[in-house]
Amino acid sequence: MTFQDAINAIEPTDVACRRRAQARLDRLTKPIGSLGRLEELAMQYVAITRDEAPKSPRAAIFTLVADHGIAVEAVSAYPSAVTAQMVLNFLRGGAAVNVLAAHAGAEVRVVDIGVAHDFGQVSGLIARKITSGTRNFLVEPAMSREQARAALTVGVELAESAICEGIDIIGTGDMGIGNTTPSAAITSVMTGLPVAAVTGRGTGVDEEAFQRKISVIERALALHRPDPADPIGVLAMVGGLEIAGLAGLILGAAAHRKPVVLDGFIAGAAALIAAALQPRSKEYMIASHLSVECGHGAALERLGIKPLLTLDLRLGEGTGACLAIGLLQASLKILTQMATFREAGVSERAP
Amino acid sequence: MTFQDAINAIEPTDVACRRRAQARLDRLTKPIGSLGRLEELAMQYVAITRDEAPKSPRAAIFTLVADHGIAVEAVSAYPSAVTAQMVLNFLRGGAAVNVLAAHAGAEVRVVDIGVAHDFGQVSGLIARKITSGTRNFLVEPAMSREQARAALTVGVELAESAICEGIDIIGTGDMGIGNTTPSAAITSVMTGLPVAAVTGRGTGVDEEAFQRKISVIERALALHRPDPADPIGVLAMVGGLEIAGLAGLILGAAAHRKPVVLDGFIAGAAALIAAALQPRSKEYMIASHLSVECGHGAALERLGIKPLLTLDLRLGEGTGACLAIGLLQASLKILTQMATFREAGVSERAP
Repeated sequence: MTFQDAINAIEPTDVACRRRAQARLDRLTKPIGSLGRLEELAMQYVAITRDEAPKSPRAAIFTLVADHGIAVEAVSAYPSAVTAQMVLNFLRGGAAVNVLAAHAGAEVRVVDIGVAHDFGQVSGLIARKITSGTRNFLVEPAMSREQARAALTVGVELAESAICEGIDIIGTGDMGIGNTTPSAAITSVMTGLPVAAVTGRGTGVDEEAFQRKISVIERALALHRPDPADPIGVLAMVGGLEIAGLAGLILGAAAHRKPVVLDGFIAGAAALIAAALQPRSKEYMIASHLSVECGHGAALERLGIKPLLTLDLRLGEGTGACLAIGLLQASLKILTQMATFREAGVSERAP
Repeated sequence: MTFQDAINAIEPTDVACRRRAQARLDRLTKPIGSLGRLEELAMQYVAITRDEAPKSPRAAIFTLVADHGIAVEAVSAYPSAVTAQMVLNFLRGGAAVNVLAAHAGAEVRVVDIGVAHDFGQVSGLIARKITSGTRNFLVEPAMSREQARAALTVGVELAESAICEGIDIIGTGDMGIGNTTPSAAITSVMTGLPVAAVTGRGTGVDEEAFQRKISVIERALALHRPDPADPIGVLAMVGGLEIAGLAGLILGAAAHRKPVVLDGFIAGAAALIAAALQPRSKEYMIASHLSVECGHGAALERLGIKPLLTLDLRLGEGTGACLAIGLLQASLKILTQMATFREAGVSERAP
């Protein structure tokens, strides 16, 4: 399935299934609605999947990794070499996402979609490199439109093959030194907000680098003038390969009626692209957390989705998605494992 | 250990241990501080327990159950019989707290500290009944000072014996039809805020019952004039047996250097009492979530502790504590299972 096929395949979620899930939740031994957002999560899952009695759904986090030509403008506190080094750390299980995914009972799938390093044959790495990192979008487009489309289709295919294998919940993850810079650029274009309002300090740059980062994005947007009505063009001009891949992952999950748990700011930028390509995809999104990166809240507001957690996270990799998958799994156990008032012999509300 | 012994045994948490935990977190392969509140949680755990390399800490939720004489004033949407019915539901594993505790890998310990029902011999129930429910505090004190002290000591003993058995994390839970009414009364007294500002709809009463609930509490406070400087007196006049027990549970956990994960509004009222008896106990508290009950935020603000989750929960039982225990366990795995920059061969920040 190409990304265009996925866009065409996405249907609205099922309102009748949602209502039946709500009716079951209301028969369980608790005051109606008293588990708040956990109940909403369970209802959303049922509406998306049409599975009214989900049993131990399997989850996978896709950590898409790519390098960024814009990193030569010194917009990050870390050298670009860290991107490839972290890939090896993911594969050895030493990164935060490995620990948090294992805690949530989820797999981590590490995808080279554009790292500027030749890994050769490395066990466990999913090799889907489009090109060895984007170009510096301060001087030229980050990638071609064809590369953007190819990266979107890689994301769709990743979701598709995982779902065929029996994965029920897709989590987004990302790694790529410099990737908050294209994410801020995309967020500014897609929300219409000024660059300074959606740009944060990423991995923690100092004030001077922070001001440089804002200026770099402003100049790049002035150069390319990306059009929010042309999301492929936005990706090509100021995007990143992992961001395009994540947008495809979202579309692929939605096309196959599975929820996609968004991680943080980079996923938010990808979700803005996915929603522009197919607004119905928003119904399949679960926002795991609100990042410290200031543009993330603006992206989620534009998408109309409310984050589950606010834990001052700003790591990426899929770490926030892992924590939210734990909540989603909990919500589904509430739906399927609690006793009803009748089963438990508990009196209902006074009339 | 009596509650008075516990108060005397509580020491400040260990600042040097906390610093060493922070130093380790800063060597792990992630930007410094990028896991936000998860990192704070891990540091707090180490400061409390002095265990710098915690391995799979065991958690138990204590669901303390009691009836409330004030329920005759029709302050709840459910009949009092539900209290005892829910005890049986807890013991059969059908309630929300059972499902969420199992999800977090925690045990549930169900304690009859004052249910107005004779259970006889029931397998699994911890029988520590002080008396069969409180009296109606609209007309007389809810309990005697001796009963309040005895309930506090039950809580201390529950924590103490669990910790002796190897429990490392104590979670609070509660059940008792009518118990948001004494909790609101205590919160009003201990924070100095007006009753209307700290009273919510509990399990979901209608507008008429809600206004009656506020009026009942205002009249009770006018009758008893409880003194916030006398927390035992506050418990005796307008408290509840499970609330007193939870205050003891908090003190017992702190006396034995273990963290106590507070559930919602009822735990908040108990924590205000515990903190008034021993302000150092606040260092041992972790606020799991911010309840829909409007008085809860006021209680946490007074305690100076920030809730981890905001999921519109208002169920009680320990459900929010279970979710937060999942986050605490995750934070400890971050501390102990991630690779350092050196181990992973990842470059640190550019100088």
